[in-house]
Amino acid sequence: MSAQRPVIGVFDSGFGGLTVLREMVRLVPNAEYLYFGDTARLPYGTKSAETVARYALGACHFLESQGAEHLVIACNTATALAMDAITSYAHVPAIGVIDPGAAAAAALSKTRHVAVIGTEATIASHAYHRALEKLKLQAYEKACPLLVPLVEEGWIDHPVTQQVAEIYLQDAFLHKDQRSDVLLLGCTHYPLIRPLLRKVVPSDVAIVDSAESTAYALAKKLGVDPPPASASASGATHASGARAVTAPSAPDPRPGTPGFRFFVTDSVQKFRRLGAGFLGHPVDNVEHVDLGG
Amino acid sequence: MSAQRPVIGVFDSGFGGLTVLREMVRLVPNAEYLYFGDTARLPYGTKSAETVARYALGACHFLESQGAEHLVIACNTATALAMDAITSYAHVPAIGVIDPGAAAAAALSKTRHVAVIGTEATIASHAYHRALEKLKLQAYEKACPLLVPLVEEGWIDHPVTQQVAEIYLQDAFLHKDQRSDVLLLGCTHYPLIRPLLRKVVPSDVAIVDSAESTAYALAKKLGVDPPPASASASGATHASGARAVTAPSAPDPRPGTPGFRFFVTDSVQKFRRLGAGFLGHPVDNVEHVDLGG
Repeated sequence: MSAQRPVIGVFDSGFGGLTVLREMVRLVPNAEYLYFGDTARLPYGTKSAETVARYALGACHFLESQGAEHLVIACNTATALAMDAITSYAHVPAIGVIDPGAAAAAALSKTRHVAVIGTEATIASHAYHRALEKLKLQAYEKACPLLVPLVEEGWIDHPVTQQVAEIYLQDAFLHKDQRSDVLLLGCTHYPLIRPLLRKVVPSDVAIVDSAESTAYALAKKLGVDPPPASASASGATHASGARAVTAPSAPDPRPGTPGFRFFVTDSVQKFRRLGAGFLGHPVDNVEHVDLGG
Repeated sequence: MSAQRPVIGVFDSGFGGLTVLREMVRLVPNAEYLYFGDTARLPYGTKSAETVARYALGACHFLESQGAEHLVIACNTATALAMDAITSYAHVPAIGVIDPGAAAAAALSKTRHVAVIGTEATIASHAYHRALEKLKLQAYEKACPLLVPLVEEGWIDHPVTQQVAEIYLQDAFLHKDQRSDVLLLGCTHYPLIRPLLRKVVPSDVAIVDSAESTAYALAKKLGVDPPPASASASGATHASGARAVTAPSAPDPRPGTPGFRFFVTDSVQKFRRLGAGFLGHPVDNVEHVDLGG
């Protein structure tokens, strides 16, 4: 990495991308991070491909205008529905969360069958199905639209959330011959309920979230040697090694202190208040922007 | 009413306002209805007052440009956060859902205490509190952010939804001395779970939704004699008289067939598909519009 710190633009529909930012900061602390959360128009997960693509291109344009030299699409729905459009449109390199997540799942799966959960729009796009197929894996896909509102209600360790997760996942691990041995979290909100999901899925099923694997992809792209992974380089946990992802983890003592600027389209106060739970530390330097919506 | 049919512009963040439209069509069938659903930016219930007001003014401007002579703000959040701004800004008369709902509750309550449930933004605005206070009633207000996603998931008669409603309402009817005897549904999605809520609240508590009372307010404004109410003129049901509001009710054989045009900011297909459940009959004539968001 050059002496010049890289400027990394991170985009999400709202808060979930902060779980990706948290992992990137851990792996690449010596950088300037610009985070754009399109909170006035969230959630993207229930919206059409055309609308999500339009919003995503506006966000990327804004981040470039603020000096971003790399774009991280830290939103599964936007990656699923607009990654091709973003790649064509952007003037700087862009990475999404789906390919790194799929690669991490592929590295772990022995049965070559992976269960993927996400928003309605992400699942309907079959973007994970395609990404896993390229890696010779089969996907079992399931939309779980209630999990994001449950996380945003703060019910991350609540019996209702567990019951909802059990309903959504009741058919996911039934097949004896073609059984998935990885649960891939295809939504950046889900790391907050990873301990709860750990209780719901069979103990021999690994849980992979793309936050950590995306952060590794970024580090690799920037030529930064990542520190030892907290659980594994793939972001996987088995029942025996569950991490408390809801608790802020102390940053590694690595050179350079990250710089942050946050841009949101809805209330700055609300982003400060709710964002800290996702990022794991206080959220400062938040500015309101209006992209004409 | 003149021979000229009135043109009524109806505005909601998405689908919920269709429950209000359904009641208006029953009471005022001889009219042209323009319905604007801001589906690309829903839900409003979690957003800030400034953002909701900005969106609401854009929607009202659009409806006026399409010829609306009356505006019905069929969205509790927009009424709560932007009614004053809309009234100042609009060139035609506008009615919201909060005053009619509060009036219906006032007509029914003997204890002068009313429990109000709604989205986070509606409840935080205390708009129902103020409207009820003017009528010398006390409000117990409770935000229920999970109920909209549960309705949109189609879990309108699901044990999880009942459990969530029980959790939200567990303290609402405890006070012996100052006990609420009305539950006011401060969100246009909630009529779809009215039978379920009927099971959750004590049998002597009346349930009022503002859809029917808003439709009566419109009829009165237009000088239309309303037909006999389906349950009561206030839209109230007690345990003994619960209506199946989720099933489409046959329209009254009244003169004039309503005309409909629907405008949405997200997918036309999705609005057609989901809208029918809220409106009680198929949704045709849907056009996509882009208000620059």
